[in-house]
Amino acid sequence: MTTTPRHRPVVPAPVDVPSGRSVHTETPAPGDPRLARLSLNQATVKRWSLTQAVDGCLRAGLPAIGLWREHVQETGLERSARLVRDAGLRVSSYCRGGFLSDPSRTDALEDNRRAIDEAAELGAPVLVMVAGGLPEGDRDLAGARERVAEGIHALAPYAAERGVRLGLEPLHPLFCADRAVLSTLGQALDLAEQFSPEVVGVVVDTYHVWWDPAVFDQIARAGAAGRITSFQVCDWITPLPVDSLLGRGMVGDGHIDARALHRAVLAAGYEGDVEWEVFNEDVWSADGDEVIATMARRHAECVL
Amino acid sequence: MTTTPRHRPVVPAPVDVPSGRSVHTETPAPGDPRLARLSLNQATVKRWSLTQAVDGCLRAGLPAIGLWREHVQETGLERSARLVRDAGLRVSSYCRGGFLSDPSRTDALEDNRRAIDEAAELGAPVLVMVAGGLPEGDRDLAGARERVAEGIHALAPYAAERGVRLGLEPLHPLFCADRAVLSTLGQALDLAEQFSPEVVGVVVDTYHVWWDPAVFDQIARAGAAGRITSFQVCDWITPLPVDSLLGRGMVGDGHIDARALHRAVLAAGYEGDVEWEVFNEDVWSADGDEVIATMARRHAECVL
Repeated sequence: MTTTPRHRPVVPAPVDVPSGRSVHTETPAPGDPRLARLSLNQATVKRWSLTQAVDGCLRAGLPAIGLWREHVQETGLERSARLVRDAGLRVSSYCRGGFLSDPSRTDALEDNRRAIDEAAELGAPVLVMVAGGLPEGDRDLAGARERVAEGIHALAPYAAERGVRLGLEPLHPLFCADRAVLSTLGQALDLAEQFSPEVVGVVVDTYHVWWDPAVFDQIARAGAAGRITSFQVCDWITPLPVDSLLGRGMVGDGHIDARALHRAVLAAGYEGDVEWEVFNEDVWSADGDEVIATMARRHAECVL
Repeated sequence: MTTTPRHRPVVPAPVDVPSGRSVHTETPAPGDPRLARLSLNQATVKRWSLTQAVDGCLRAGLPAIGLWREHVQETGLERSARLVRDAGLRVSSYCRGGFLSDPSRTDALEDNRRAIDEAAELGAPVLVMVAGGLPEGDRDLAGARERVAEGIHALAPYAAERGVRLGLEPLHPLFCADRAVLSTLGQALDLAEQFSPEVVGVVVDTYHVWWDPAVFDQIARAGAAGRITSFQVCDWITPLPVDSLLGRGMVGDGHIDARALHRAVLAAGYEGDVEWEVFNEDVWSADGDEVIATMARRHAECVL
């Protein structure tokens, strides 16, 4: 631990969290080039305030953070922007806008415009867009998808004016009914291609796309057009937990070959941050610094 | 209830099972043309023996049954074949073979050959093939998919000689890690097209394919080549139950537009049976005759 700077508390970490697996790799210390593109998505340390998350990034030497609206609202927009800026952290993404499929949600466009404004103020290059699922009692999937496309058309000029890209995130088909009718990277690209790449791109999240037989072709297609706005990683673990929203694991604990997908986005020209976004009750219950230390080790071991 | 024949016990059924929803449609009686292509997959009445399932089909006037190996083994192969034949029921499918992705399962081919023999003896036109998931600790999805293709190549001549088609069933991507690395109809067709349509086709199951943005195109592609071996229906219900294998609902209780998918397979030239295959603990706990009555009503109401 000779490279650990004085301001970092030395926490004994013989095991990874939450798996309890023995540590295979020494934790990369601040300044280690393997951390140069590692970003902490706030959802991974959900119970931390923004201040705590920023401090956690600084202690671990992470250069970037992915922000969530809930946390930013809690802290206040202006204060959040200042906190992150003063810490010298990059904002890798702002989560999230979207939910454009339900015609009864009449404030959806207005709410998305506010999210775009917030992203601009925070210096976030991209607002991550989750499409939204089928409205209650509705089985018209094609109709829901059309409404999502109409919503993106309505929002794109506003986003372009403010220099914020919309990152369309296909979600695993597991979520098609209740969260996102955009289910594949190819489908997200079909929509994104109706706009300039500077305005609308796609989010590649290992959890959502790993199963797709076309994923490597679609990553190449997205990259060739400069449309990969974000690359997020976590693992698919089995058995799925009771709440299927929380079935994401630390990379290395599940079934996804994250390294192959990371290489594919790099080969496709992606130069942005690699955001760790892990929705998992056991991760949330663990100590935040240990979560980040595990992330840093697993990033070196299983992603790079 | 004037059309109910004497051999059918009159069971008061004011509600559908397991939802408890009020009945909207009178139960189609035996001989009703709406039952002409309705098949009971045994998995829907899992706790019934084959004898009970055959009797249940006869009472309700169902002309076809989808058989499962477990139940057939329990009853004995020869006796099962005789039971079904004597009852005058069509066998719509035999479930299931496959699980070809794990190289440590050295008996997989032999076991599949036995399943093909059984299907032939039962007069089943198709053996439903579930690919198998990633082997324990393995993240090489492409490799697993190659092994499945190799397995189908090894089995196809054997199946062809015995007049049994192999029906490749893409499973919902939810199951990619642990049950089936074939995840889309397009992917299953890419493999099936390496063989004659008389030997290898695909199974279209609403639960597995409904979310796929390409599903209607792929159904048309499958039908044009005469490759749809089976059409199975059930619904996607939310929230997913604790055991995600059992999250299938009675058509009409969830989010899938089964009628649109049924029309698509008909338009693509499919003339076979419509098998109701519902894995659901609440359905299994319900009275089998009420399950079949609900099926018959919902078939008339939500599928045809």
